[in-house]
Amino acid sequence: MPTARPTIADVAQRAGVSKGLVSFALNDRPGVSPQTRERILEAARELGWQPNLRARALSVDRAFALGLVIMRDPEIITGDPFYPSFIAGVERELASAGQALVLSVVPDEAAELAAYRKLVTDRRVDGVFVTDLRHDDARIALAAELGVPAVTLGHPEAPSPFPAVSMDDRAGIAAAVDHLAGLGHRRIAHVAGPDRMLHGSRRRRAFEEAMAAAGLPAGMVVETEFRAVDGARATRDLLARPDRPTAIVYANDPMAIAGLGIAQRAGLRVPHDLSITGFDGSDVGEHLFPSLSTVATDAVSWGAVAARVLLRSIAGEEPGDTDLPPARFVPRESTAPVTEPTDRTVP
Amino acid sequence: MPTARPTIADVAQRAGVSKGLVSFALNDRPGVSPQTRERILEAARELGWQPNLRARALSVDRAFALGLVIMRDPEIITGDPFYPSFIAGVERELASAGQALVLSVVPDEAAELAAYRKLVTDRRVDGVFVTDLRHDDARIALAAELGVPAVTLGHPEAPSPFPAVSMDDRAGIAAAVDHLAGLGHRRIAHVAGPDRMLHGSRRRRAFEEAMAAAGLPAGMVVETEFRAVDGARATRDLLARPDRPTAIVYANDPMAIAGLGIAQRAGLRVPHDLSITGFDGSDVGEHLFPSLSTVATDAVSWGAVAARVLLRSIAGEEPGDTDLPPARFVPRESTAPVTEPTDRTVP
Repeated sequence: MPTARPTIADVAQRAGVSKGLVSFALNDRPGVSPQTRERILEAARELGWQPNLRARALSVDRAFALGLVIMRDPEIITGDPFYPSFIAGVERELASAGQALVLSVVPDEAAELAAYRKLVTDRRVDGVFVTDLRHDDARIALAAELGVPAVTLGHPEAPSPFPAVSMDDRAGIAAAVDHLAGLGHRRIAHVAGPDRMLHGSRRRRAFEEAMAAAGLPAGMVVETEFRAVDGARATRDLLARPDRPTAIVYANDPMAIAGLGIAQRAGLRVPHDLSITGFDGSDVGEHLFPSLSTVATDAVSWGAVAARVLLRSIAGEEPGDTDLPPARFVPRESTAPVTEPTDRTVP
Repeated sequence: MPTARPTIADVAQRAGVSKGLVSFALNDRPGVSPQTRERILEAARELGWQPNLRARALSVDRAFALGLVIMRDPEIITGDPFYPSFIAGVERELASAGQALVLSVVPDEAAELAAYRKLVTDRRVDGVFVTDLRHDDARIALAAELGVPAVTLGHPEAPSPFPAVSMDDRAGIAAAVDHLAGLGHRRIAHVAGPDRMLHGSRRRRAFEEAMAAAGLPAGMVVETEFRAVDGARATRDLLARPDRPTAIVYANDPMAIAGLGIAQRAGLRVPHDLSITGFDGSDVGEHLFPSLSTVATDAVSWGAVAARVLLRSIAGEEPGDTDLPPARFVPRESTAPVTEPTDRTVP
């Protein structure tokens, strides 16, 4: 149990004044002479007195904490490069603001809604982040019903009373397709995230539009989950097709890295026989051979800006929407000019 | 702001009894007839009444939350597979216990100590996790001084009043060395984590002891940070030596994956020219070509058990130390019998 902390009574005794006067002085209210105020503040400093944040939170109905609920399997979260960076950005902002982050990891949508509700009704948090937006996302309505300030990562489909902090991922996908088209690729496939997630369907649409804009035939699209194991399976399927692609645009880095492994295992040389692009700009991709061409998103900044916007909402401001610089394509070694199809057979 | 929640007064009105009687019934105290208690509980259920956790926490001096402070650069945390899994395990346990996790990510030791102190003196948490133990770790003394229940991941060097939850990583390193020795390797190097971190120095010592036990000459050891970029640099140094190793045991997966990239880039075939082992059992290693032989630690279980032990400490029990099943070596494709040195030169 915490050791005894100095109380207002201790400060009053040391300064030789009443508790009421201490409270007035510490809360900067009028009615205390400058000399007395100085004496009280000095006594408080000497005793190491600090405001009791929990009592203060109760009195002004504030928890001084923000809530983040992540719906993922433990096994998926291990491989996902987004959240650790996003959280690091949030934390960088909260540390200086004296706020804490309350984190929940939940397995499914029912648990997710229950977690948001509990964080708010238990008054553990003053505001919540809403990430991984989905079609018909029930969390927007829930947060509105609970009356809790929120910030969404990206724009939800339905009208939302909450500010959105967005990073346009379409430009990065379009740049990847343009890059590949410029290298002479025509049979470009896309391994997409699940359509129920807005960033999955948005990246897929950006891919399809970029293919059309480049005058290329509609690409092959495989929709799957954002996990490495699914990226591996999708790649096997694509490489087994008679009209197999000469390039694959993946919707995230874990899928792309697994796809690279599958292609190499099948005896294909990347990039000479198959070009590959990822999405995330994760650290590991830079260290592979060949290094992974990818779309770099600045998840740390995203976290920091989202935290700032949420804190402003909690303070009663109306921050409006924020558009961060769009994700940008980073060409590395896993993309190269298209070569004539070889006779290599794919097992 | 949260909408109005049903209060004890609302329950009392609905049940037609006094507030005091409601409080007695809801807190399961004697003095309420079974029929009245049932009527009160029914009224509470109908109204959707829930205990006000913050008021309850104040009254019994409990925050119903655990604290985790992680000292990492944002850029490092992105590539580290341990924490996301560990946190997922903690969360799995806390969700069912109605507890929350308060997370802080800090850049250095001063900020780390300040973060622990603030979590406790602000009464945001009832207990803290102490991870990434170091030599002369100031956090043990700080937690003792603050009087906050704590659990350490592994045993600290100094005497500690707190239960430790440990997973022996030495057996996994020893098994990796034995595996390589059995394949005929003699020149085995170790890319170690920083010596100031206990798991860095412990894995290094396990490597040295296993080499001696296998009757092999003292291996080459490069001490560096746990990041991919440092693993890459250490690998370049090792491969440039005239007596370059035929196998490298890395202290974590990100370093090993970067080392694999460096070796392949240098024209070496892994595993035929160089065998490589990692440590973590991270998802991505399974999908590389060749797939990464590694030491699998169950970080999810580690998190769940540490959370259980901490909750028991907070409840006033004295849980004692827990030894989890040791980390085990998982041979995959990146290790093979030693072959005669080739003429390949390393750039």
